[in-house]
Amino acid sequence: MKASPRGTRIVKRQQVAMDAYALIIAGGVGARFWPRSREHSPKQLLEIIGSGTMIQNTVYRMDPIIPQERILVITSAQQEEGVRKQLPQLPPENIIVEPFGRNTAPAIGLGAEILRKRADDAVMVVLPADHLVHDIAAFQDTLKNAIAVAEQSRGFVTVGITPTRPETGYGYIQFQKADETRPYAEENAYEVVTFAEKPNLETAQRFLESGDFVWNSGMFIWRVSTILNGIAEHLPELSEELGRLRGDIDTDGFPAALESAYGEMRPISIDYGVMEKAENRFVLPADFGWNDLGSWDEVARLYPKDEQDSASTGEVFLRDVRNCHVSTTEGRYAAVIGAEDLIVIDTADAVLVCRKGRSQEVKEVVDHLRKKGLERFL
Amino acid sequence: MKASPRGTRIVKRQQVAMDAYALIIAGGVGARFWPRSREHSPKQLLEIIGSGTMIQNTVYRMDPIIPQERILVITSAQQEEGVRKQLPQLPPENIIVEPFGRNTAPAIGLGAEILRKRADDAVMVVLPADHLVHDIAAFQDTLKNAIAVAEQSRGFVTVGITPTRPETGYGYIQFQKADETRPYAEENAYEVVTFAEKPNLETAQRFLESGDFVWNSGMFIWRVSTILNGIAEHLPELSEELGRLRGDIDTDGFPAALESAYGEMRPISIDYGVMEKAENRFVLPADFGWNDLGSWDEVARLYPKDEQDSASTGEVFLRDVRNCHVSTTEGRYAAVIGAEDLIVIDTADAVLVCRKGRSQEVKEVVDHLRKKGLERFL
Repeated sequence: MKASPRGTRIVKRQQVAMDAYALIIAGGVGARFWPRSREHSPKQLLEIIGSGTMIQNTVYRMDPIIPQERILVITSAQQEEGVRKQLPQLPPENIIVEPFGRNTAPAIGLGAEILRKRADDAVMVVLPADHLVHDIAAFQDTLKNAIAVAEQSRGFVTVGITPTRPETGYGYIQFQKADETRPYAEENAYEVVTFAEKPNLETAQRFLESGDFVWNSGMFIWRVSTILNGIAEHLPELSEELGRLRGDIDTDGFPAALESAYGEMRPISIDYGVMEKAENRFVLPADFGWNDLGSWDEVARLYPKDEQDSASTGEVFLRDVRNCHVSTTEGRYAAVIGAEDLIVIDTADAVLVCRKGRSQEVKEVVDHLRKKGLERFL
Repeated sequence: MKASPRGTRIVKRQQVAMDAYALIIAGGVGARFWPRSREHSPKQLLEIIGSGTMIQNTVYRMDPIIPQERILVITSAQQEEGVRKQLPQLPPENIIVEPFGRNTAPAIGLGAEILRKRADDAVMVVLPADHLVHDIAAFQDTLKNAIAVAEQSRGFVTVGITPTRPETGYGYIQFQKADETRPYAEENAYEVVTFAEKPNLETAQRFLESGDFVWNSGMFIWRVSTILNGIAEHLPELSEELGRLRGDIDTDGFPAALESAYGEMRPISIDYGVMEKAENRFVLPADFGWNDLGSWDEVARLYPKDEQDSASTGEVFLRDVRNCHVSTTEGRYAAVIGAEDLIVIDTADAVLVCRKGRSQEVKEVVDHLRKKGLERFL
């Protein structure tokens, strides 16, 4: 989606609920970004491209719409310190620490319960902490529109990314092509037909050509009551478990209650648990230069290249190097001679040399390290 | 040369001068072994293959023939500390520190002057500090024979390595094929015809096939008087400069005198300055598994390989890796995925990724670092 003309934007800004909140999900361990990502500093806590870490940029790019005091982050005990350090402006009570990872439905349900207590039936924006957005103005326009739709429709709203290739690594959302008289046409929202799992290449190609499929970005926008009702209807067990926690929120007993409740919870994604089954769903197709940075190959693709199709960061020496991505870190030096199609990621205590196109296999390194008990490299 | 039968060996041992000394030349900066070799710890101070550093093994393998108290090491100020640390058994006064590198002729001349003062006309074995010897018994037999020839002939004696391939990276020595009645036939010595520079491939092939060319190993054996007379005849300037130093040897004024004398000296190799011009030269062809370890490619060649023709040292993860040499260091981890024909050398502060066959170019990295003033990586 292109930025709207100025006049329209002003009108929309007035439609934005003044009390929209955000819940940033910062749970992933980012094994595919080894050796830069570690258990204590996964992808979202790294400065992978440009300046600022992924989670910092996730916060900053919402700034004119959702100020930092209304942003919650839900994360793991391992990442808590890093999150607090990187986001010192957030109120301390806005960092929620899950005792264990239980996928997105429990995390989002917990965030919604906390917001119900603190902010009643606010609109709540759920965002992954580790995605890249190139066109921030376009992102903000989409977000404002999505908030307006969520507030007014009391439905489940999501942002879909207009696909640019037959990607098999993402889920897709099909929407109802509709005329200009549909509800929320002005906000560029469409009714959702279905959520589709990661397709094979042939299906992905068909999705791409159809024009009514978008990538599932993992961004959701809804009123607190909408998602808590959705969980009550489609995940009644989780709803009950969250209900038992309710009285402990913002009390000294909360961490213990959370630990006990999480022990019982079934891990399930919000997509599978609620979105695929719910009604009254809307998607806003968008085109703001989104990238979920799923692997080193994607990072390598995004970097500007030299005449030999190579890119580098840090102090490096490249001699007769073609189509390579070479990165080293403060205090270290990397030299590459006579190489093609390689990704070289050099860090303070480890180095990865990986053929381009195979960086999905980096998680095998992490599995191996775990199996071998080489915890210091995890 | 194969080890002689036991009886012969005993006879030869009796022929060995009881006061043979060794001068180990430890001056090289080993740029081709970057990033493992550094100015303060060049190749000779590293444990590149097996256990023990190159210079330690150079000392140890002479042990039954030349005990440590009769071994001198000539090195640079930068390497002095490393040499003393690695060879604590050597008398401190046996470590000679050159103020600047002036190639081998001044170093050998200086060593000979020191020995003249300390040991009169002893036989002196000159050895590079950074060569590999596989068959130590055969090496020791050769050395004993060479010492005997040097003592008795009062000539310039060298060890030549029987070539196994048309190597263009070494100098060659042609010897006089002769019958069994020649002098020192029992010691397997031959008269030298000529010293040949590094040949091109065609010439190297011819040398290999001829049967009367051997590789110049850089090992020389002679009486102190022989080499000092050779220097006087062929390098009179150096002889004069050394003469002026004579009185200062083993006095407190020696370092200052050395600094002043070295400032004037012309860098020249003993090969070019003396050996190529001298008469009464002998070479002992030998075959004791010698390797000058000139590059990472040679190191890679010497390692035992796995089923994928790869070898590794340190904590590594190799997945779908063929014909690679991967080395990392204590406290670090290296992962390689989908690579072929690569040398990966990972160290505490730098990493090298180099296509096999191109490790001669590693010195370009060192040149670049020097040019850029990145001294900490040198």
